[in-house]
Amino acid sequence: MILLDGKATSNTIKDEIAEEVSKLKALGKKTPHLAAVLVGSDGASMTYVNSKVKACERVGFKSTLVKLEESISEEALLKEIEKLNNNIDIDGFIVQLPLPKHIDEQKVIMAVHPDKDVDGFHPTNVGKMALNLPTFLPATPYGILELLERYNVETSGKHVVVIGRSHIVGEPMSILLAQKRKYGNATVTLTHSRTKNLKEITLQADMIVAALGIPEFLTGEMVKDNVVIIDVGITRVDDTTKPRGYRLAGDVHFESVSKKASYITPVPGGVGPMTIAMLLKNTLLACSRND
Amino acid sequence: MILLDGKATSNTIKDEIAEEVSKLKALGKKTPHLAAVLVGSDGASMTYVNSKVKACERVGFKSTLVKLEESISEEALLKEIEKLNNNIDIDGFIVQLPLPKHIDEQKVIMAVHPDKDVDGFHPTNVGKMALNLPTFLPATPYGILELLERYNVETSGKHVVVIGRSHIVGEPMSILLAQKRKYGNATVTLTHSRTKNLKEITLQADMIVAALGIPEFLTGEMVKDNVVIIDVGITRVDDTTKPRGYRLAGDVHFESVSKKASYITPVPGGVGPMTIAMLLKNTLLACSRND
Repeated sequence: MILLDGKATSNTIKDEIAEEVSKLKALGKKTPHLAAVLVGSDGASMTYVNSKVKACERVGFKSTLVKLEESISEEALLKEIEKLNNNIDIDGFIVQLPLPKHIDEQKVIMAVHPDKDVDGFHPTNVGKMALNLPTFLPATPYGILELLERYNVETSGKHVVVIGRSHIVGEPMSILLAQKRKYGNATVTLTHSRTKNLKEITLQADMIVAALGIPEFLTGEMVKDNVVIIDVGITRVDDTTKPRGYRLAGDVHFESVSKKASYITPVPGGVGPMTIAMLLKNTLLACSRND
Repeated sequence: MILLDGKATSNTIKDEIAEEVSKLKALGKKTPHLAAVLVGSDGASMTYVNSKVKACERVGFKSTLVKLEESISEEALLKEIEKLNNNIDIDGFIVQLPLPKHIDEQKVIMAVHPDKDVDGFHPTNVGKMALNLPTFLPATPYGILELLERYNVETSGKHVVVIGRSHIVGEPMSILLAQKRKYGNATVTLTHSRTKNLKEITLQADMIVAALGIPEFLTGEMVKDNVVIIDVGITRVDDTTKPRGYRLAGDVHFESVSKKASYITPVPGGVGPMTIAMLLKNTLLACSRND
């Protein structure tokens, strides 16, 4: 069993990006600049945004954190986004989700200019992704593709089962892995809450992407030998033996599944760190396009 | 075995649209107007465009056929498209594909304004489709969804196998059938030329969408009893016993598969006529948006 070490891989990628940035600076070119919009003070959102800002520092990007009150109106938020769209120094930006309930998330996503949408959430970028045209790939599926590539895990002709049909992970992952691309060309089955006999299907899978958000859902008896496991889930589970009172659990029951797997991502330290690395890659791409 | 009669169903839909158009006219509202751009004089393309124009007449739409020389430059074609984008009387238009080799098809598709893109091929519309937002659905997958709905063929929780990953049929069909929607919620496996052991997979399918473009590829021994069969293929096959010297064949070997199927689309008269009906539906939607 080989651990798909997202933490180490993301560090390698960050080193590569840092080198690129040094070169850009040496040539007197523009420094990539990522902005993040944070509305309110949700703990998890603050943690995510802070790691993104920290990642920017690590690779030599400029970063801007736009902190807005929880109570901000939709209109005022849209104005902030317009400012970022028009700010020529900012190559790309993200709006940390979820947003407070009084704000229409889809409207906000649509307001981000596609050329600055380094999250790859705007319909125009989602469409380009589906059409296999160059674009900003959504960071989590992109990170998974990159991890497969770095570990040279063959996907062509393999049967991949994706569990979970979210617009951010499951659906785009199923689209990308089936396309004509180096780490694609897989036969892909997209499963979800309405799927019957899931176990029958996962037992046939050469690779499983678990992205349903239920801790330790996928167990050893649901997978066949030598399966490749990508665990996208990350949930806080109460655990009184831990100093913080919780531990982080993936969607995969690691202990039983890892015994059968050929490759498996740990949680934490698997898909998560890759996601941030790919956000940086997208920002670098945005900057190079602006050059 | 029940025949999913696309011809009859499309006629019903056209009658419904014609009634809508009469109402619009009676209210003094705008008459829906579809334009079609035809470059060159390819026989099949001319046939398709003519049936679209005829369908417009049938339902009371205005239609405009823009015929352009095979030798037209890409630049000149893009100018024609810009004219159609700016013509406020035209609600929607299509550019008949394929285009001559010296023209970049993707560039042309991108030039059509998303609000007039009744084929649903522009990345912004493809993205909205993938995000399950209101948009112009691509006509063939949309026609299949409509056919399932009119015959009340349940898809929720069923295992659908799509054969072929084209951007026009296979891929969007796989996306739509897996989504949370009335005739969706299926477990979907997308298969293609790189798929191994296809027969093992099709034998598990409750429904199969064959859209690979190989005549009579899917045979009776590849399907299980009571399967629902959607045949998207339509290929001219030499046949000296026919007056024209050919017959039209689907991707399904009708004789053997129909013996096992619970529902099946014939070729011709199945998916084909539905495609045109849905193009009209999209044009009606475009017109109502412009109202």
